[in-house]
Amino acid sequence: MGFWKSLFSGSDTTPSSKPTAVEGYIAEDENSLPTEAPRDPSLSSSAARSRSSSRIFFSTDRDIDLYELEELCDAVGWSRRPLRKVKKAIQHSFLVVTMWEQRGVQRRLIGFARATSDHAFNATLWDVVVHPDFQGKGFGKALMKHVIKKLRSEDISNITLFADPQVVNFYQNLGFMADPEGIKGMFWYPD
Amino acid sequence: MGFWKSLFSGSDTTPSSKPTAVEGYIAEDENSLPTEAPRDPSLSSSAARSRSSSRIFFSTDRDIDLYELEELCDAVGWSRRPLRKVKKAIQHSFLVVTMWEQRGVQRRLIGFARATSDHAFNATLWDVVVHPDFQGKGFGKALMKHVIKKLRSEDISNITLFADPQVVNFYQNLGFMADPEGIKGMFWYPD
Repeated sequence: MGFWKSLFSGSDTTPSSKPTAVEGYIAEDENSLPTEAPRDPSLSSSAARSRSSSRIFFSTDRDIDLYELEELCDAVGWSRRPLRKVKKAIQHSFLVVTMWEQRGVQRRLIGFARATSDHAFNATLWDVVVHPDFQGKGFGKALMKHVIKKLRSEDISNITLFADPQVVNFYQNLGFMADPEGIKGMFWYPD
Repeated sequence: MGFWKSLFSGSDTTPSSKPTAVEGYIAEDENSLPTEAPRDPSLSSSAARSRSSSRIFFSTDRDIDLYELEELCDAVGWSRRPLRKVKKAIQHSFLVVTMWEQRGVQRRLIGFARATSDHAFNATLWDVVVHPDFQGKGFGKALMKHVIKKLRSEDISNITLFADPQVVNFYQNLGFMADPEGIKGMFWYPD
C-alpha cells in the first residue's frame, strides 16, 4: 500500500479501495438469511465441529459498530481512518453489505463492502474486506455475489471497482473485466 | 464504443463513462463567473470577433435542460440514454458541473461532467464531455480543473475515473495516474 501512503499522506486521506484476496466457494446466500457455513477439511475435528455450528449471513443494515469495522480493517492491515469520515462514507454509500458469522447469540463481523452510485447507471465498489480467518474459503466470493445481486436488483448495470494486482484474478473469476477495450482506471495525483 | 454496446445491449444500460478528448489551455476559471474565452488564431477574423464577444462560465446548478444535455452528448456520438435515468443520475451525483458559452443573453451548453462520491474519501467522474466545437482549445482542461477544485474543496482526496485509451494522456496531463502500483480499473461483466 505504499502508493496510497505516499499519495495521500494525511490521516484523513487514507484510501478506501483495498480489496482483499479471497477465493473458493460458498453455498448460495439466502438474502441475508442464516446459511450453513461451508465445512473446511483443513480444520481439526474440534474446530470443524465448532465451525459447523456457526452460520454466515449478510446484512445491508448501516447501523454498524464502527469500532468493530475498524477491527476488521486492522486485521487485514489497512491504515486507520477517522471514524467520523468512515461514518459519513457509509451514510453516503448507495449500498453497504456486511457479512457475519453467528454462533449462538454471538455475531462477529467477518466481511464488508460498500458501493457509491448515481442510482441509475454506475456503481463503484470500495472497502471490500474479508477477515483473514475467512479468506480462501469462498466467503469473499459469496460476499461479492451478494453485492452484485443487490446492485443488479437496483437496476445498476455498470459495476466498477479498482483492484489491487493480487486480487485481479479473484474479480475476473466473478465476471469483472480489467481494462475492457483499453479503458484505464485513473487516480488523480496533485501536481 | 463497441465494448459498451456489446456489454450492455439494453437501451437502459448505455454507459455513462465516455470521456471526450480535449487539450490545450484556457485562462483560469473564476468560480463560475464569466470569463473571457481564449482567442483562437485559427479562426477567421469574423469568427474571431464573434468568439471574442462570448464568455465561458461554469455552473453547479443541476436544473439542466435534459434535451440540451442530450444534444451535447449527441454531438460527440454517445448512445442515447433514457432521460428519466439521466435525471436520476444527475440528482444522485455528488457534483455536477456544466460549462457554458454566453453570447449576449444566449447561453449554450458546451461541457458537462459529474461525479459520484461517498462524500468522505472517494469521487468517481462520469460523463465528461466537451462539445466538438470547443475541443482542442483548453476548454476540457478548464472544465476538469474546475471539477477537481470543487472536489478538493469538499475534502475529497481520491478522485478516480475510467478513461478511454485516446484520453489517457489528457488526464495524465491533469495529474491523473493510470494503474498506480498496478491497481486495475475493472468492470463487471455478467456470465
